Amino acid sequence: MKVTNYLLGYENLKIIQDNEMFNFSLDSVLLPNFITLNETVKNILDIGCGNAPIPLILSAKTKAHITGIEIQKEVSEMAQETVKMNNLANQITIINEDVKEYAKEMTPEYFDIITCNPPYFEVLETSRLNKNDYKTIARHEVTLNLKDILKIARKLLKNGGTLGLVHRPERLIDILTTMREYNIEPKKIRLVYPGKNKEANILLIEGKKNGKKGLKILPPLYSHNPDGSYTEEIQKYFK
Amino acid sequence: MKVTNYLLGYENLKIIQDNEMFNFSLDSVLLPNFITLNETVKNILDIGCGNAPIPLILSAKTKAHITGIEIQKEVSEMAQETVKMNNLANQITIINEDVKEYAKEMTPEYFDIITCNPPYFEVLETSRLNKNDYKTIARHEVTLNLKDILKIARKLLKNGGTLGLVHRPERLIDILTTMREYNIEPKKIRLVYPGKNKEANILLIEGKKNGKKGLKILPPLYSHNPDGSYTEEIQKYFK
Repeated sequence: MKVTNYLLGYENLKIIQDNEMFNFSLDSVLLPNFITLNETVKNILDIGCGNAPIPLILSAKTKAHITGIEIQKEVSEMAQETVKMNNLANQITIINEDVKEYAKEMTPEYFDIITCNPPYFEVLETSRLNKNDYKTIARHEVTLNLKDILKIARKLLKNGGTLGLVHRPERLIDILTTMREYNIEPKKIRLVYPGKNKEANILLIEGKKNGKKGLKILPPLYSHNPDGSYTEEIQKYFK
Repeated sequence: MKVTNYLLGYENLKIIQDNEMFNFSLDSVLLPNFITLNETVKNILDIGCGNAPIPLILSAKTKAHITGIEIQKEVSEMAQETVKMNNLANQITIINEDVKEYAKEMTPEYFDIITCNPPYFEVLETSRLNKNDYKTIARHEVTLNLKDILKIARKLLKNGGTLGLVHRPERLIDILTTMREYNIEPKKIRLVYPGKNKEANILLIEGKKNGKKGLKILPPLYSHNPDGSYTEEIQKYFK
């Protein structure tokens, strides 16, 4: 069922979502609050934007133009509606295309920042997946894998441009090695823990195209209090 | 000046150190408290053991035999004296040799666990170092670098054996890629933060020889309270 919700605490931002497809998640709120933004940023690309939570939150934090690209037609239509409903058509462009095709035609070195909340799971030969399912495409590397993302980032980012990913800590090694392989040097990591004395369950990482070596691991971020509510730090993101 | 100190809170363990060379550090206390020990562990190697803090602490936690190897003669003599003074000559053997030479002659697949608190800093062409200085050898990759350690671990560890390192977060990418290159699969990471809202400054990592993929990032460990004292969790290690 398609419903219109307020984007959590962002008072003025509404988002359309279909609960049978998927809802935007905490991940999509964390990434735009983690990425380094500054006044010089002109163009941002969000790969696999879903119903556009990342472009929406970014629009509240930057004047840059934001392109969201989404391979799934129905999902991209929800994103379109969401953008219109928020009167953000001047700042956010939604494109319904496979980003791999988009990158082939697109001017190289166009973007200052690329963000992506990608499919997390590797597709193994043993994986039994319905490859047409909305959720499968969003969660499994069926249409887009890490190498694809890094290849695209290397082409479309300006020299010194920033790639920001939200991912799973289990994939850390793959992510670091693939980033380095494509000359996006990992610069900043933040690990998100669901509570005290729990293992990290979300990884935020930022890399710089042709950046110098030098990785910082930022203070840990706890997402939930013992009673299940969001911590103060997370609640700050919803304002 | 050579002095005999109690090994912090380990009531029965004394350690000899020369303040002009170096003192054992928090790192050496963290690693033996991080590494996975169990009853089946028979033989442990500590590479670059210095004045033997890691073998000493391990001796209080396992019945396994521990070999400590140290390239610097005077330092290894302090380690020897320390072992004798603690009546641990039956459990700990100190060898004064370059571990690269030792590994050439040594029976392959002999050890269940290898620990190492290695030199942290890469030697760059621009580094101006006194290569005979005690501290330089302990801190910079002059006589031993990451690849050397991994090569040795791959040879000397049993199949499924464990390598434990304490290192600096800045080197995380080098460490993960080198471990994987030598078939020591990273399995467990713990990041140590000097205080709330500070970047991580110590990295603890454990890998398994020929292990399956699957990395866990354990809860963060805070080392110091705002007043500079050790946190409760660190104080527990000193008992």
